[in-house]
Amino acid sequence: MLSFENDYSCTATPEIIERIEQIEQNQYPGYGNDSICESAKTKIREACSCPDAQIFFLVGGTQTNQTIIDSITPQYAGVVAANTGHVNVHEAGAIEFTGHKVLTLPHHDGKIDANELDEYCATFYADGNYTHMVFPGCVYISQATEYGTLYTLAELEAIRKVCTKYDMPLFIDGARLGYAMTATGNDVTLEDIARIADVFYIGGTKVGAMFGEAVVFTHGNMPKNFVTLVKQHGALLAKGWLLGVQFDTLFTDDLYCRIARHANDAADRIREVLVERGYTLTFDAPTNQIFITLDNATSERLQRNVRLGFMEKADDTHTVMRICTSWATTDEQVEQLIALL
Amino acid sequence: MLSFENDYSCTATPEIIERIEQIEQNQYPGYGNDSICESAKTKIREACSCPDAQIFFLVGGTQTNQTIIDSITPQYAGVVAANTGHVNVHEAGAIEFTGHKVLTLPHHDGKIDANELDEYCATFYADGNYTHMVFPGCVYISQATEYGTLYTLAELEAIRKVCTKYDMPLFIDGARLGYAMTATGNDVTLEDIARIADVFYIGGTKVGAMFGEAVVFTHGNMPKNFVTLVKQHGALLAKGWLLGVQFDTLFTDDLYCRIARHANDAADRIREVLVERGYTLTFDAPTNQIFITLDNATSERLQRNVRLGFMEKADDTHTVMRICTSWATTDEQVEQLIALL
Amino acid sequence: MLSFENDYSCTATPEIIERIEQIEQNQYPGYGNDSICESAKTKIREACSCPDAQIFFLVGGTQTNQTIIDSITPQYAGVVAANTGHVNVHEAGAIEFTGHKVLTLPHHDGKIDANELDEYCATFYADGNYTHMVFPGCVYISQATEYGTLYTLAELEAIRKVCTKYDMPLFIDGARLGYAMTATGNDVTLEDIARIADVFYIGGTKVGAMFGEAVVFTHGNMPKNFVTLVKQHGALLAKGWLLGVQFDTLFTDDLYCRIARHANDAADRIREVLVERGYTLTFDAPTNQIFITLDNATSERLQRNVRLGFMEKADDTHTVMRICTSWATTDEQVEQLIALL
Amino acid sequence: MLSFENDYSCTATPEIIERIEQIEQNQYPGYGNDSICESAKTKIREACSCPDAQIFFLVGGTQTNQTIIDSITPQYAGVVAANTGHVNVHEAGAIEFTGHKVLTLPHHDGKIDANELDEYCATFYADGNYTHMVFPGCVYISQATEYGTLYTLAELEAIRKVCTKYDMPLFIDGARLGYAMTATGNDVTLEDIARIADVFYIGGTKVGAMFGEAVVFTHGNMPKNFVTLVKQHGALLAKGWLLGVQFDTLFTDDLYCRIARHANDAADRIREVLVERGYTLTFDAPTNQIFITLDNATSERLQRNVRLGFMEKADDTHTVMRICTSWATTDEQVEQLIALL
Repeated sequence: MLSFENDYSCTATPEIIERIEQIEQNQYPGYGNDSICESAKTKIREACSCPDAQIFFLVGGTQTNQTIIDSITPQYAGVVAANTGHVNVHEAGAIEFTGHKVLTLPHHDGKIDANELDEYCATFYADGNYTHMVFPGCVYISQATEYGTLYTLAELEAIRKVCTKYDMPLFIDGARLGYAMTATGNDVTLEDIARIADVFYIGGTKVGAMFGEAVVFTHGNMPKNFVTLVKQHGALLAKGWLLGVQFDTLFTDDLYCRIARHANDAADRIREVLVERGYTLTFDAPTNQIFITLDNATSERLQRNVRLGFMEKADDTHTVMRICTSWATTDEQVEQLIALL
Repeated sequence: MLSFENDYSCTATPEIIERIEQIEQNQYPGYGNDSICESAKTKIREACSCPDAQIFFLVGGTQTNQTIIDSITPQYAGVVAANTGHVNVHEAGAIEFTGHKVLTLPHHDGKIDANELDEYCATFYADGNYTHMVFPGCVYISQATEYGTLYTLAELEAIRKVCTKYDMPLFIDGARLGYAMTATGNDVTLEDIARIADVFYIGGTKVGAMFGEAVVFTHGNMPKNFVTLVKQHGALLAKGWLLGVQFDTLFTDDLYCRIARHANDAADRIREVLVERGYTLTFDAPTNQIFITLDNATSERLQRNVRLGFMEKADDTHTVMRICTSWATTDEQVEQLIALL
Repeated sequence: MLSFENDYSCTATPEIIERIEQIEQNQYPGYGNDSICESAKTKIREACSCPDAQIFFLVGGTQTNQTIIDSITPQYAGVVAANTGHVNVHEAGAIEFTGHKVLTLPHHDGKIDANELDEYCATFYADGNYTHMVFPGCVYISQATEYGTLYTLAELEAIRKVCTKYDMPLFIDGARLGYAMTATGNDVTLEDIARIADVFYIGGTKVGAMFGEAVVFTHGNMPKNFVTLVKQHGALLAKGWLLGVQFDTLFTDDLYCRIARHANDAADRIREVLVERGYTLTFDAPTNQIFITLDNATSERLQRNVRLGFMEKADDTHTVMRICTSWATTDEQVEQLIALL
Repeated sequence: MLSFENDYSCTATPEIIERIEQIEQNQYPGYGNDSICESAKTKIREACSCPDAQIFFLVGGTQTNQTIIDSITPQYAGVVAANTGHVNVHEAGAIEFTGHKVLTLPHHDGKIDANELDEYCATFYADGNYTHMVFPGCVYISQATEYGTLYTLAELEAIRKVCTKYDMPLFIDGARLGYAMTATGNDVTLEDIARIADVFYIGGTKVGAMFGEAVVFTHGNMPKNFVTLVKQHGALLAKGWLLGVQFDTLFTDDLYCRIARHANDAADRIREVLVERGYTLTFDAPTNQIFITLDNATSERLQRNVRLGFMEKADDTHTVMRICTSWATTDEQVEQLIALL
């Protein structure tokens, strides 16, 4: 059945599969101490214009969020996130599992607001009982957000300023960073991300790789003995070169952005048709995720022919569903979907 | 300076001090395996009309909440609480420290609503992605609440029903249970609490004891090897008889309720005057905590002469403050306060 | 440079790479809910003669040990392991990270002894203070062990008996299970393992796969909501079919055992030569890991031409090194090594 | 029945009970922010000759060990302790509960050896795989030890040197520090302890107080937001002045040492008799704990008339038992015991 359920339903780009075949006979040292990882890191540093970036490859998103947040957040503190943030909603409590509370701000189309963050911190430190409360210890945002929306450069700069003011590292979840960077209207470059965030990751799982997230510490701030922390969290891949080779491929000839743009183009085409045909877009989002509020009859009709993502019940007669394109979406699939709408 | 800051600013009732003097020369086995603890437990079982209750004495409230919730909540689950619940706000993340998320419901004068709890659980299990989310694994409520309000018997029964429906143990934080049981208009007895809750505690720290909370498991459901779990949480008191002797005293001749009623009487008298003089009571609460919304000038004026509890900024010109009576409040102190109002 | 450093220095068997290529264009549901995972599970159930086995695929060994042990060990308990066990030595504290102590028994060539396990438990429960101590809550052993040695069937049965006596689930780490099953002299079949263990895993990372460990719960004892627990531990792979396809391939036409036997044959050949030439084998082990105690001069000489694994300093003039063959070891490599010995 | 079972079977010294009576009517601010705590801290700073010491009062020993070790040990590290250390054996896994492994060294009459500690660390950092292992992150010793023995000043200085060499804070568990300081032959003063340790505690529970341990950070190294960490661990006492008043009393007129010396005198007298009568002292220890290896018949005979502490089975016919004196032991009790020996 046709599926626009998510952006991680295909294995990997042919270029990656090909590279893996090519290295099939080789022997490499384990745990990422290999030349391919080094090559991939060099390419990522260049793409970020951040020659001192410290880079570590992990396997998946929840694992990455868990390991990073636990490593950068003080023991007495929690992580501030949108109430819709992946770490707050869809990670089965992986953050709390490591002892840290997720402190939530209301979201605005999936984003937190710098002023509200400032107000939150100001109120916290003004509270006479704040030493009995969980300190705001780091800030988590996603670009693109869980709703497919984007922070503007100005918004990121404003959040950065508040982070600096209250001594909170800023962590950007880039599980869909490729789709963010290549979206129509986006004004935030990879260099901007590297300049603004204390640590972020470039998502592979959802953007062309079999798996893999490239964590980037931007200013010599990789936590001490980070490889041990990763191992302790159960997150160290034995055959690290498998991560290296995928990112080395994605960051060769701009492949990462090319395939991401392809997904956005497909989404733009679908959005155009949705608007033409009077569908209600739940959010005004320019990336590969399209949320539509459907009456239940339409929702059921569509799902007889195409697999969509469930988001939430909007009310008794409406449901929010997600149409998700990816690097692997074909023109044919797009046309099939459009025929159903 | 006169203080109505909280209900744990005096050492203990004279009866308790006296009992401690009396046993000063005796030797007891450690960790609660002594005859005084046994005596206290017998008295509490009688007071609860719950002959099979399993009782364990702990030192303080946060410690008790942490140990109990961690012991009764499944590993894959969190605890549902009002967003104003002590475990969510004022325990420095002690619950998350043990790996469990606090799942919040909006409060209504400090209370959760049974229908909203039902809806929360229904929505959870209806969500296609619920296995990636934190299960509602137990329910935490306080009686009296953090705002001094009370659940009615009907409200408790309704919450119990939802707990049973979704297989969640119900835990009642009774840090101020004495003040709840003896408040004007209260319709919930200790027997009711013992019948409705899976586990609850009778607060000593805030009701006459130097320290101590009596945890009551109501139907043979004390977690296996509970003493080991308590030790593991750092919560086992070596000289357990000190806890026993305090509760044995408090549950002799109804002392616990007598001193609690005294505090409520004092609060009622103050409330009466506040209303007469046109003060704004923030909540309609019948127990020993009185919350008033003050303009900042009045707030400052009062605080020059009496120590009050800070609650929160209401807006730029108003602050919510707390007047808290206790078992130790004297008529003289009440009159001094009234003179200042 | 020639390398016998470990058994996870090559990507994967050609059969696996080929299968991945074949499915490159397909779409699959995420998180292991796909038909290939089902097929792989069916094959593993058959290979285990355990039609009710519940199977879950995870990515790596430490992650698997951490998730399993944390899920099957009571909160008040630890895991009993050989002091040389991987969980005790080489996982950066991943077990303690989840709150459980590793309780160690002395090893005998990497193995624990059933009688010593029995004695340990008997002593524990006879100790007047045992409720203040960490209970032995489950038992962890590895087959093959970290030293390449094997438990005999009789030894496993004896350990099983003690586990049953003291109500401790038995968990067998099978990171190198293929090498164990196909070793000369081994008398333990996969069916035996499935019958004796409460849970075990079939290692893929070290036996032909890019990554992956197939966890097998043998009698309906998979922990409740296990997928949520896996997610909470950061261990859930988005593209689960990548795990499925690898195990489906390994369990087709006995590939798993064929490639493991190949590694053992290579090790046998090397062992033969080592003995002929008077080397000291540190352990009498029949699997793909060969430990030799070398004088430092020889150790240095060898390592100029071949990468070996460091084990430990034996004394001031000797070092224990490891020669490790794998499914990928070629006859040519074996001859090159032999020429250096 | 006569009891020499432990040193925490009596409530508190009369001086402490008297002080508590005296303050019974007073109101104090909570959580240790009161003038009595300040007074106690001043006296302790003077007794330690450490004017900059930062002091925090906690309730019990396991709680203190758990909170301190978790606060001073890096996330990727464990705590080094004697295998007989209280944190390793008798705290129900409270250290591992916070995520840290206890790394054990063999004990010598309850003590670790500086050379062995040095060797342990040297071996660790020389291991090619050390980043996959648990780092030695702090060192835990007890003075007096769990076996009643004492470190000499030279031994402590030697351990300190190794701690400095490998950047590990030194934490001294002083649950029985009074008994150590006043033992015959002891050459370590409180000033020495404060100079040598990074953090230590002065035990109250076992030396005259109802409960309470005074944690001393010796050089401005109290962890940031320590009160929040304490609260998070469930270890913050609401009525902190109860801790303050006890230590204020114990550090007035040298009461702490006077009562400790009394216990040691009683133990010396018992030891003298034991030796005269041919008993086997298990350890050569000068403090209030006496370990004797008894044949089982004698052990049973004695225990019919006096409660002793169980230590361990020595062999099939012998048991190690503990005779423990305390500040509360009377001459009469000593004579009664001697009559039984």
